Amino acid sequence: MSSFSILATAKAVPEKIVTNDDLAKIMDTSDEWISKRTGIKQRRIATKETNTSLSAEVASQLLKNGNVDANDIDFIIVATMSGDYHMPSTASAVQGIVGAKNAVAFDISAACSGFVFATHVMHSLFELKPNALGMVIGSEKMSNLINWEDRTTAVLFGDGAGGMLVSNQGDGEVLSSNLKNYGDRREALLAGHILGNETFGPRDDDDTDRYLHMDGREVFNFATKNVPLSIKEAAEKAGIELSDINHFVLHQANARIIKSVARKLGVSKDKFPININLYGNTSAASEPILLSEMMENGLIAKGDIIALSGFGGGLTTGTVILRY
Amino acid sequence: MSSFSILATAKAVPEKIVTNDDLAKIMDTSDEWISKRTGIKQRRIATKETNTSLSAEVASQLLKNGNVDANDIDFIIVATMSGDYHMPSTASAVQGIVGAKNAVAFDISAACSGFVFATHVMHSLFELKPNALGMVIGSEKMSNLINWEDRTTAVLFGDGAGGMLVSNQGDGEVLSSNLKNYGDRREALLAGHILGNETFGPRDDDDTDRYLHMDGREVFNFATKNVPLSIKEAAEKAGIELSDINHFVLHQANARIIKSVARKLGVSKDKFPININLYGNTSAASEPILLSEMMENGLIAKGDIIALSGFGGGLTTGTVILRY
Repeated sequence: MSSFSILATAKAVPEKIVTNDDLAKIMDTSDEWISKRTGIKQRRIATKETNTSLSAEVASQLLKNGNVDANDIDFIIVATMSGDYHMPSTASAVQGIVGAKNAVAFDISAACSGFVFATHVMHSLFELKPNALGMVIGSEKMSNLINWEDRTTAVLFGDGAGGMLVSNQGDGEVLSSNLKNYGDRREALLAGHILGNETFGPRDDDDTDRYLHMDGREVFNFATKNVPLSIKEAAEKAGIELSDINHFVLHQANARIIKSVARKLGVSKDKFPININLYGNTSAASEPILLSEMMENGLIAKGDIIALSGFGGGLTTGTVILRY
Repeated sequence: MSSFSILATAKAVPEKIVTNDDLAKIMDTSDEWISKRTGIKQRRIATKETNTSLSAEVASQLLKNGNVDANDIDFIIVATMSGDYHMPSTASAVQGIVGAKNAVAFDISAACSGFVFATHVMHSLFELKPNALGMVIGSEKMSNLINWEDRTTAVLFGDGAGGMLVSNQGDGEVLSSNLKNYGDRREALLAGHILGNETFGPRDDDDTDRYLHMDGREVFNFATKNVPLSIKEAAEKAGIELSDINHFVLHQANARIIKSVARKLGVSKDKFPININLYGNTSAASEPILLSEMMENGLIAKGDIIALSGFGGGLTTGTVILRY
């Protein structure tokens, strides 16, 4: 098992706070309805920030917090489904902005499981590059993909970015990875559909609009069944018991999903930190934002075992178990 | 050096052919102007096809051509900047469509260097998974990102997909990879800008529209300087001479760029196959479409050394040298 050590974490969220009460002013909803069903009390929404500015801010903080030089970064992966551009990749923009001139940079698109998928890809890249430094960043401007007139989805999401600076030197390690796709169930979560051009023939007949569509029941059932499975299998692969895991850092999609996963695994809810109340569902950014806050608050000790577990559009699940 | 063997290749292009003369009917251009400057005579444009349908068709052919079962595929990476959706990833849709239920699937966004970046990522994923099978697919529906009223860019691009089925068993191997980002020069190539929402504050003030913008001069200078450099460095890393390379499979952005690269490397143009005349610039799909046609035509022999080299938005360059 090769080293995979977290040297620093960071987060960057938009300045603008939008509370449930703020939403109740523009759509037929209420703080009670939202918080009871999701655990969300407020979210950050980018008004002056962009996906690029948020992820570049995370990268700058990682350099500072990790006390490393930009020139020493070998890889930058940004997990996102809401980049400001289709080209360049967000990661390439970040590479340019922070001046990490020796870093190979690209984006990964795996929706809400993006951060876990990107962590596994970084671990893989490390295999071919001794003594490497990398940044795994999850960054989303979900507000671009939301139909703000659809109260069933608009209340759920938020914007933000988080990340970790990692190295294949040191005491940390990846104990196991367990990524899965369920592409046959992809229609349960759609966003950002682009209509074909009409210059040379009829538009393709898929009239899904560009905003996020979710079959909430299907996704809830999917997550409460498959996330416990993903974590159990990852623990088996790692050769550890669930009770050996100190922190279950789950994608923050819904507090009820997280509590259900804890219950199904028979693990105390106390091991499942939650900050969805503050940020809503920030997709690929939710785990690194949470991880960063746990680090800031001194909740993670050297040697602790952390299960990072994501799930969402694709559909996908992904768990990476790390020793810090 | 671990194995990396190409077991099969495939391509899928839209049925609709749009010739330079067809374009001359809807914009102020001519066959002579386009073909002299770019080498392009025609391109395929998706009318009924989607990015998903093209890449799924490639995946189906790879299963058939490689004579493998969908259940045996471990990884599907799609390199694209023009997916039909932001969520799910194109790769996850492909995974669902071909029924590759054990495959981990995600997209990589690295613009026109996407296929080379994805090839390196697949090589890395193989390090952690013995006896694995993977699909590396480049798929683009560039026509969605093109302003069909801008004659300086509309004439350059086309739609299509190509891919390769690869294994970490067998005689093939990766001799070297050399990926680079130049994120400080990202503004030379932009596409797909998404405007922020205005629900909670002013839109961000970047008024770039969603269509492709290119500083043609800057990109030409970038490519003719940095692609030869990328290939030279990759050969050095591989410990081989340029003359050891049998086929230079370059991103098909412009026939003049390819000829300039051959000249600067002092290598015969005959070793630089070109099919841009038929397809235009298909971004991440151009190398696998070309590779697939070379394989079909029996131009590549067992043991041949192939340099895959991409360049473009990011800005990026990437070269992977393989022994077939």
